[in-house]
Amino acid sequence: MKKKKKYIFGWDLGGTKVSVVLSDGRRIFSKRVFPSGRSLSRKTLLRQLVYCSRLLSRKHGVLRRQIRGIGISCPGPLDPVRGFIYHSPNLPQLSRFDLAKSVRTKMQLPVKVENDANCAALCEALKGSGKGHSSLFYVTVSTGIGGGFVADGNLIRGKNFGAGELGHVVLDPTGPRCFCGKRGCLEALASGTAMTRLAREAVQKGRSRMMKKLCKGDIQLIDAFTVEKAARRGDPAAKKIWKDAIQWLGLGLSGVIQIVNPSVIAVGGGVSQAGSFLMNPLTQAIRKTTWPDSFRATKIVRAKLGDRVADWGAVSLWM
Amino acid sequence: MKKKKKYIFGWDLGGTKVSVVLSDGRRIFSKRVFPSGRSLSRKTLLRQLVYCSRLLSRKHGVLRRQIRGIGISCPGPLDPVRGFIYHSPNLPQLSRFDLAKSVRTKMQLPVKVENDANCAALCEALKGSGKGHSSLFYVTVSTGIGGGFVADGNLIRGKNFGAGELGHVVLDPTGPRCFCGKRGCLEALASGTAMTRLAREAVQKGRSRMMKKLCKGDIQLIDAFTVEKAARRGDPAAKKIWKDAIQWLGLGLSGVIQIVNPSVIAVGGGVSQAGSFLMNPLTQAIRKTTWPDSFRATKIVRAKLGDRVADWGAVSLWM
Repeated sequence: MKKKKKYIFGWDLGGTKVSVVLSDGRRIFSKRVFPSGRSLSRKTLLRQLVYCSRLLSRKHGVLRRQIRGIGISCPGPLDPVRGFIYHSPNLPQLSRFDLAKSVRTKMQLPVKVENDANCAALCEALKGSGKGHSSLFYVTVSTGIGGGFVADGNLIRGKNFGAGELGHVVLDPTGPRCFCGKRGCLEALASGTAMTRLAREAVQKGRSRMMKKLCKGDIQLIDAFTVEKAARRGDPAAKKIWKDAIQWLGLGLSGVIQIVNPSVIAVGGGVSQAGSFLMNPLTQAIRKTTWPDSFRATKIVRAKLGDRVADWGAVSLWM
Repeated sequence: MKKKKKYIFGWDLGGTKVSVVLSDGRRIFSKRVFPSGRSLSRKTLLRQLVYCSRLLSRKHGVLRRQIRGIGISCPGPLDPVRGFIYHSPNLPQLSRFDLAKSVRTKMQLPVKVENDANCAALCEALKGSGKGHSSLFYVTVSTGIGGGFVADGNLIRGKNFGAGELGHVVLDPTGPRCFCGKRGCLEALASGTAMTRLAREAVQKGRSRMMKKLCKGDIQLIDAFTVEKAARRGDPAAKKIWKDAIQWLGLGLSGVIQIVNPSVIAVGGGVSQAGSFLMNPLTQAIRKTTWPDSFRATKIVRAKLGDRVADWGAVSLWM
């Protein structure tokens, strides 16, 4: 009789919520979600994660020896080899913390830690639009812009684990200042935050009545979805912001195609919920600045896993 | 007694000359060079390559069974899996030609074909500045700008073998037209050809007396070396051309660092002969648009093998 360890815990640590799933790599058996945030201490956060995991394994009668390991998806620059978090802007209680060691001690299980964009890239490659393809570049467009590159089933992490950071490729050296200190990073030109900033400016300058109406006069309520909505309804200012962002995104992804020539480019993140309203003009923008052969060879799609990235991202580290 | 095949033939097919070397992967035993060019027919070219190879093996008493294979480095878009040349601008007699099959039949030996920039990247990674490092991005700046990416000793070729084509990353969508049809490719902004074009314009417009003197009034004699020479001597027009090209090159390589985060960036090609006059400002340009951590993690150097790329490039396909 084979007694193979075959269960995986996936911990997804987000800035607003945290989830714990139990999976066998084929399906998710159970999931527990609880709110996170800055107020939760490091100790409490870890205790809750451990508690939820034990709850799930008990519920499904899974013994420790049947568990292959824990995969942890975490935002921010980190060292996936040591499992050490350098800096976590949205969960500052985890900054400068040896997460893997701490969890390994508490749970007595092998632990893998990886940044969230890389986890998303990996699960999209293994279970999403990258299935059956040799390489996938994943880009997430939401508050920020992140990405990850998977070739032959392996994450290409880079020398200091900084590969895939498409959001901080400089496309316009004279462009707006990015939070990272540089000017004209893709993130400063095309992220949800960038679109929000431009939309608020447009409303303040009285250049968009529709967006003003949509936010009921409170510009703090404007976000990328406001821009999308107004652009769909034909508001000229919103259309320009949306179009410009897509042109920059296309230019960045065209660079990715020239440099790594992936089989698939998968676009995820909040902004990708716009569907074909994003994907059609984005594909055209990429086509304009890419070699025709390479453009044709690359499948450009919306990430297939969508919200399920939170479930599968961490689990895929053990797949 | 072990009778291991251990010799490799390396064929380097260039637009002006062709070389054949015999190597064991550690050193080059012998080399034969002959002029190529468009006038040589495909048949004659192949016959000479075969003849030279047999000459070398006879000279060193190497038997067929001691030869692992033939590595062929060839310019232009090609399919390295089939060994098929799609298009060879500088050796048009090889365009649309199943090179590997033809050589395999003639020599009765295994054959590997790869484009020249990838061969250069591979040998630089295995025997040059990439030795002991996990990944290397090679960029060659000469008439054109090409490149190749090697991770863990393997070429990352991409879906349609177009990876590493840094020269055709669009950096300035409103910039000068590139021969590939797009606008503002790095190659159209920073290659030897781009610098030559700008220098000739400057001389024609009477903006550089020094370059006019250096070319003795014949602007056809101006090339990237003229620009370098005049820039070293302080000619303002030449200095601007040189500096601008380096800024664009830095921006492109900074994108490479953000996307693939290689351990080493090696700069080869004719323009790299300028040494620190290129490398110092280039490193500074890269620093300006790259995350400090990633900049520090990446070693930026002049390619170590220099001219020996022609010897080792093709051989490295069998190493």
